[in-house]
Amino acid sequence: MPTILAMDAGGTSTRAVVLDTTGLCLGYGRAGTGNPTAAGIDQAIDELALAAERAIVAGEVAGRATTVPDSLGVVSLAGSVSQPFVDGLTKRLSALGVTSLSLQPDLLGTYYSGTIATEGTGVIVGTGAVAGRISDGALEFTRGGTGWLLGDDGSGFWIGQRVARAVIAALDGLAPATKLTELVLAFFGIEQKPGIVRGRPSALIELMEQLYALRPVDLARLAPFAFEAAQDQVARGILEEAAVAIGQLLASTRSAHDNGPVVLGGSILAAGVRVAPDIFARRLTEASHGGELIAVADGVVGAAVLGLRQSGVVVDEQLFARLRGGIATLSDSASSIATPGQA
Amino acid sequence: MPTILAMDAGGTSTRAVVLDTTGLCLGYGRAGTGNPTAAGIDQAIDELALAAERAIVAGEVAGRATTVPDSLGVVSLAGSVSQPFVDGLTKRLSALGVTSLSLQPDLLGTYYSGTIATEGTGVIVGTGAVAGRISDGALEFTRGGTGWLLGDDGSGFWIGQRVARAVIAALDGLAPATKLTELVLAFFGIEQKPGIVRGRPSALIELMEQLYALRPVDLARLAPFAFEAAQDQVARGILEEAAVAIGQLLASTRSAHDNGPVVLGGSILAAGVRVAPDIFARRLTEASHGGELIAVADGVVGAAVLGLRQSGVVVDEQLFARLRGGIATLSDSASSIATPGQA
Repeated sequence: MPTILAMDAGGTSTRAVVLDTTGLCLGYGRAGTGNPTAAGIDQAIDELALAAERAIVAGEVAGRATTVPDSLGVVSLAGSVSQPFVDGLTKRLSALGVTSLSLQPDLLGTYYSGTIATEGTGVIVGTGAVAGRISDGALEFTRGGTGWLLGDDGSGFWIGQRVARAVIAALDGLAPATKLTELVLAFFGIEQKPGIVRGRPSALIELMEQLYALRPVDLARLAPFAFEAAQDQVARGILEEAAVAIGQLLASTRSAHDNGPVVLGGSILAAGVRVAPDIFARRLTEASHGGELIAVADGVVGAAVLGLRQSGVVVDEQLFARLRGGIATLSDSASSIATPGQA
Repeated sequence: MPTILAMDAGGTSTRAVVLDTTGLCLGYGRAGTGNPTAAGIDQAIDELALAAERAIVAGEVAGRATTVPDSLGVVSLAGSVSQPFVDGLTKRLSALGVTSLSLQPDLLGTYYSGTIATEGTGVIVGTGAVAGRISDGALEFTRGGTGWLLGDDGSGFWIGQRVARAVIAALDGLAPATKLTELVLAFFGIEQKPGIVRGRPSALIELMEQLYALRPVDLARLAPFAFEAAQDQVARGILEEAAVAIGQLLASTRSAHDNGPVVLGGSILAAGVRVAPDIFARRLTEASHGGELIAVADGVVGAAVLGLRQSGVVVDEQLFARLRGGIATLSDSASSIATPGQA
């Protein structure tokens, strides 16, 4: 029976699952980011191959044969890819028995992680923010995803940059004090002591130096502090603005007569739904025009669905449930195995 | 009679004037940016020396002796400077007869280009945005100026980035159409033609590619389009937000019982006062608490004032008027000479 290697290459980690065409999940593995824009082409290929190898080895360790030649590889990932990336990945995965490789937009992988409906809407808000309409099982169009400098309102970068700006402005006496200040200063190991450097509080100068030393997109690492301090007025204001922007992104992608569910992916939507539902749920519900909201952890289930369909298998509710259950079980046990120090 | 070499090292150009201690202006010269943060240390030193040489040569050509040994150099510039910059500049200017060099904050150079009052407020909004209180003739404290990523609300970068984001969002169907779109697309030579690339209008993809190829801070180059399209609702909204932010910056620097004038420098304040006075004047007037508003072109007059004071000369209203008149006359004739292709 042919096998499928389904992978989701996210901005912080890659998930891989090996399954057969009955939807039986054989092995699961994780590695670092397999997104070539985030990690560079060579590193992304290495991480994708590593996740695949771990999935294969995990299946073998558990006594399930996984190294079947002539298998199909499906990779769900954000952004556009270059030919050198495609060529390099094709070559590396062929050594693992993948003879056919299909690269799919992360919006599709995410969407089909939540539903088998062929009409609906996908929204991913992680470091960036993108939405798309799924029609006839394909991505009809997308909105957003234009990056940290030019768009992605409401994204992890967008929230993180606002957190940083709010703290800088508070230290500079330009904006109200906020709980975010102590969280961000502690994160960077900066002490808030009296004393003025070049006419400014020393903590302001130290924080500026550390923040400007980062790649701009790394300001996304400060986004969790907005959720941690969600009771603080400044932090709450940032989250409320983010929820409005995400609602607008969804609304621009979905009309009142669109059918099908709205699948939500990415770390910010996960945190928004879990930590600050009062802020996020209303905006998302409004913009979804009555569509069911489904939150998913990542896009690996969807990559498996796409792989099964490409293999001629009809994925019905029963098979979909089996797939989700199987991947959840394997990923939970992979998490507990990986806990002591492994990625 | 000892001479003074007064220079203003702005983010786009450097101005230099040679004067004697009676306030008589002998020569004037311009060159590219002399700010080491913007241009790099070596390039900044080259441009500063070039502006100084041009001022000296202009004085000699006009039959006014300017190369007097043992003169004082005063440079007004933004940001903090490194020892290698100071050492390199000291060496280069010593070859021109400068035996003593004084580096001054651009806020002081700008402030003293508009007034001789020793108490007041300076605000500079160009690519960045910074304000400071002048007390007892010195800079008492500053606010803002924390850079494009972390602060500088209302600055040229801030406006330019909002222009870019508004156009990207309009092309993406996420925000209303705006007159800014045709101005920005024409600036980059992009045609708005039908046709979809990777699910997006081709103009959106082309514009993203060109904008991400710039250094982020270069988005400041788009700020003039907000003023050009000030009748457009989106552009007007950007300018109104900028004016609010600049008003807050000024208000944070100035209390109701502060005396003295408010001196306004930088390209955005110049454009704001000239092109969109209905938007900017009210905010600035409110935040100035009744202080006189004085707009200046650059900081070279103030550098001359500081040089005269350091030489023990008392600068009164009469001398100040003479200085401003002399520098204006020389800079006007330098402009007309420089027109055919020179910087």
